[in-house]
Amino acid sequence: MAVIVPFGGPPSASIDQLVGLVAADMERVNATILSRTGSDVTMIPEVANHLISSGGKRLRPMLTLAMANLTGYTGDGHIKLAAAVEFMHTATLLHDDVVDESEMRRGKKSARMLWGNEASVLVGDFLLGQAFRMMVEVGSLRALDILSAASATIAEGEVMQLAAAKNTATTEDEYLAVIRGKTAELFAAACEVGPAIAERPKAQQSACRSFGMNIGIAFQLIDDVLDYGGKAAKLGKNVGDDFREGKITLPVVLAFRRGNDTEREFWVRALEKGDITDADLDQAIGLMTKHRALEDTIQRAHHYGAMAVDALALFPSSPMKTALEQVVAFCLARSH
Amino acid sequence: MAVIVPFGGPPSASIDQLVGLVAADMERVNATILSRTGSDVTMIPEVANHLISSGGKRLRPMLTLAMANLTGYTGDGHIKLAAAVEFMHTATLLHDDVVDESEMRRGKKSARMLWGNEASVLVGDFLLGQAFRMMVEVGSLRALDILSAASATIAEGEVMQLAAAKNTATTEDEYLAVIRGKTAELFAAACEVGPAIAERPKAQQSACRSFGMNIGIAFQLIDDVLDYGGKAAKLGKNVGDDFREGKITLPVVLAFRRGNDTEREFWVRALEKGDITDADLDQAIGLMTKHRALEDTIQRAHHYGAMAVDALALFPSSPMKTALEQVVAFCLARSH
Repeated sequence: MAVIVPFGGPPSASIDQLVGLVAADMERVNATILSRTGSDVTMIPEVANHLISSGGKRLRPMLTLAMANLTGYTGDGHIKLAAAVEFMHTATLLHDDVVDESEMRRGKKSARMLWGNEASVLVGDFLLGQAFRMMVEVGSLRALDILSAASATIAEGEVMQLAAAKNTATTEDEYLAVIRGKTAELFAAACEVGPAIAERPKAQQSACRSFGMNIGIAFQLIDDVLDYGGKAAKLGKNVGDDFREGKITLPVVLAFRRGNDTEREFWVRALEKGDITDADLDQAIGLMTKHRALEDTIQRAHHYGAMAVDALALFPSSPMKTALEQVVAFCLARSH
Repeated sequence: MAVIVPFGGPPSASIDQLVGLVAADMERVNATILSRTGSDVTMIPEVANHLISSGGKRLRPMLTLAMANLTGYTGDGHIKLAAAVEFMHTATLLHDDVVDESEMRRGKKSARMLWGNEASVLVGDFLLGQAFRMMVEVGSLRALDILSAASATIAEGEVMQLAAAKNTATTEDEYLAVIRGKTAELFAAACEVGPAIAERPKAQQSACRSFGMNIGIAFQLIDDVLDYGGKAAKLGKNVGDDFREGKITLPVVLAFRRGNDTEREFWVRALEKGDITDADLDQAIGLMTKHRALEDTIQRAHHYGAMAVDALALFPSSPMKTALEQVVAFCLARSH
């Protein structure tokens, strides 16, 4: 698959510079995460740490730290806010696995397969509660406002996805509304709280929020593509999971709209019937290739990536700004 | 079953006086609840209102209003906090029904039977997010602290219950720790936020919290008794649900400890096997009667009820104080 990566090509498509710049802060975030999953109820740290220690990149908390740094924040509050963002993300994953009946997560058995749906729901609730406690400790009502609104919006996006599930007539706009809610909103909030606790002008808060929103959309679109091949296995994803679950993602939306009547019948049947064979998956990938659905989804992701980079234009050049631009390139480059 | 009800007997065992005193405020709370379950995603108000409109007494938000009034609060914040408390409660019920695989709730089909587990998990998350948004709007960090801590503690209590499930060796103390978390903590927080936003001295905040904690424990113990008979059907509960789910409640703890080896074998077998017959349920109730397990659970509930009433002793006499004492009597009188 030929993909054009702007921003200087693969060498800079990396999160290494970001990781280096926030390393000292991330150590404190990780210590906070560890101490806040603690509970006398031993099942809580077990379930929480299974997921938290499973090698996620912790991109969202890193973005909170990066944006606080970029906007000149000098206090301590960004550490707990970053940990809270990671807890919100982990809670969402725990609940998602129950909703999607997923068996795998990041190449390991999902928490619900090991401890059951009950523990996944409840430990998710616990982490959400702990996230809000940390936000309250930081004491910024503006940050609380941003993250509590995100919490409601994320759930709303997930319900929207549930309602749109298996509806092959979903439009690209409707699909975008879903992923803005379920994925991009947390990236946006994670970025916005940085300048918010730094008490920077509204324009800077909006710029950081916009960076987060657009990198979040790009991230999700590349995820959608990975579900139909590419480096999925390497990233701990099962190829075809979305398809088997009847999930409508952008590659499906595009292939469905561009297909003929027979093809549309295939999509309706396949996504609704629930019992998918390898041959069905092969046919789906074949139709996506025929209609360039995967390439164009990547192209769309590049569009949002470019918007993310432009959102930061008002900030002067700095190593952190460069690092954030490289994160955008990294998210896009995951697809090839 | 002979039950001694202190506090002047049945005539005052009623929530009518409380309902009357908070009626004007409750109208505003109900309007807030209605507007905050609104969403363009139509499934959200459907699921939320199914449960919210199903005839719960809204005891928790009434307690928030009552405590704000009792401690002389004159602002507007108690309305949104009361609505937030009800949302937290509703979110817990939605998640509980998924965890317990319940088919009924308040005499109607549970939300998960009508819309599925997915919607129940996610709409619960949405309501929790909306609850935090309302708290943030009120702007009291102290109230946010109380309610976010409660949110984590409630989930912790539920996980504790999960871990203790089917363990007939659970002690009375361990069981109390579970219900303090899963039930009483929200009553405690609902009561504590009243004086907290009124910025009353710590002693008043602790008194109100203590009232809530103890009425919450009493409430749950009576609930446990109701599951084995009494007026359960009238209250929309199925007799024997807890038993069929293998739930360890105080009547079981007492009957198990007071029983002989043969009886203990019955409890272990019945609570672990999952396939319960009507004869098993009859035998369980028979053993509870033999060992006075239900009567003594009611007696324990009276102990906590008395503590709740004493917690309010430092407040001067007032119609609201009398109303709150009557609510304690009402909670206890549900059992006969």
